[in-house]
Amino acid sequence: MTPMSNQDILDRLAAVLESRKLAHGGDPDRSYVARLFARGPDAFLKKIGEEATEVVMAAKDLDHSGDLQARERLIGEVADLWFHTLVALSHYGLQPSDVVAELERREGQGGLEEKALRKAQARESGQDR
Amino acid sequence: MTPMSNQDILDRLAAVLESRKLAHGGDPDRSYVARLFARGPDAFLKKIGEEATEVVMAAKDLDHSGDLQARERLIGEVADLWFHTLVALSHYGLQPSDVVAELERREGQGGLEEKALRKAQARESGQDR
Amino acid sequence: MTPMSNQDILDRLAAVLESRKLAHGGDPDRSYVARLFARGPDAFLKKIGEEATEVVMAAKDLDHSGDLQARERLIGEVADLWFHTLVALSHYGLQPSDVVAELERREGQGGLEEKALRKAQARESGQDR
Amino acid sequence: MTPMSNQDILDRLAAVLESRKLAHGGDPDRSYVARLFARGPDAFLKKIGEEATEVVMAAKDLDHSGDLQARERLIGEVADLWFHTLVALSHYGLQPSDVVAELERREGQGGLEEKALRKAQARESGQDR
Repeated sequence: MTPMSNQDILDRLAAVLESRKLAHGGDPDRSYVARLFARGPDAFLKKIGEEATEVVMAAKDLDHSGDLQARERLIGEVADLWFHTLVALSHYGLQPSDVVAELERREGQGGLEEKALRKAQARESGQDR
Repeated sequence: MTPMSNQDILDRLAAVLESRKLAHGGDPDRSYVARLFARGPDAFLKKIGEEATEVVMAAKDLDHSGDLQARERLIGEVADLWFHTLVALSHYGLQPSDVVAELERREGQGGLEEKALRKAQARESGQDR
Repeated sequence: MTPMSNQDILDRLAAVLESRKLAHGGDPDRSYVARLFARGPDAFLKKIGEEATEVVMAAKDLDHSGDLQARERLIGEVADLWFHTLVALSHYGLQPSDVVAELERREGQGGLEEKALRKAQARESGQDR
Repeated sequence: MTPMSNQDILDRLAAVLESRKLAHGGDPDRSYVARLFARGPDAFLKKIGEEATEVVMAAKDLDHSGDLQARERLIGEVADLWFHTLVALSHYGLQPSDVVAELERREGQGGLEEKALRKAQARESGQDR
């Protein structure tokens, strides 16, 4: 039996999110995700900004401490961030595979890293504000 | 023969990122990722905050327009956000599967959504600042 | 009688924040600010990320609607953002006047805008990731 | 004669920003602010998310080091964040005094802190996601 890939797990999670939509019987009084969908985009978009900040804080703490607990916290915060982006994708009728395919497409284009690089080099040749 | 689609794209991308580390021969003059690693955590953590904001802006534009181009842009911004979190995970010696496993663990705990829900309900019973 | 300047009001607000510190008798059970101080930096830093996202969302809504209510909301979100940066400044023993003086110093250096400009031009001459 | 310090620096800065608008002769090839106005809201809104993240990173570094340089950096990052919110306010026809008046209004309403507090207490009585 093959173990599930990351992609399989993300797809399954996306299916769970889909089932939480109000149109599919999601109940805002019983499900956090159904509640997010019921409150509308600003509710989960705000969480994306908040969780991104928490990822940054956890990473800075890990920079300074390096202990196991700080690593676990970083994993948890990245999971929170990805989770809320999955909720957003679901709301807009998109799939995790749309994002993963885009990441794959970029990796396949050897030129892409070079483009990003040229931009970064150009930026640094200017002066920092 | 395993079809390509069964290969785990996130794992493969993580392996590419690993190969861009300076210790593994990554060249900051030729690779955007090697450059991020060379500049240190603040360089990619800053991008996480920036890309999260771009996800939010793309989503708001999609809310207001709903056209195909806005959908493509949202996919691209989420890909940028995930990409820079993958760089951060790599820097701290973590794998995409650490995050996906955490998402799976939470999904498996039926109680988790209820905990998040109780918190959200409690928050809303208070007053908004 | 001279009306209070923006600076005077920010200074007075900073004095109120100072009085909410636990060492100065602030009570976390009665004051939101005392509670933020008691919970420590991550509590108010997280709010800075969250409120910045809300400023962006309010601005995007104003772009698309332009009505008076959206303007009022943007003012309120910027006030929330500034408020939580004032809490952070207070925690680190800094004053609003430190920030305002820095803004004034930059304005006085005619060259500064040009430096930021050269950087922005350099960035755009590269390619966008 | 009014001493310079009584002049309102935020108002004066807002007037400078106003003069950088294209309609008022601002030149995107010579002014960073004129360039931001020319590129449109997403350009400066993105900076608000980016600078908020930099404030958080500078604060975390100050937490861990506490040295003078880290304090200076935090002041600079808050100045960057406020600066880009001033650009946004200007774009939407708003003044710094609109925000400061809102902050003053809240301070005057003794009840406001209590409302925010009840919300925070309610949130903590729930469970953290």
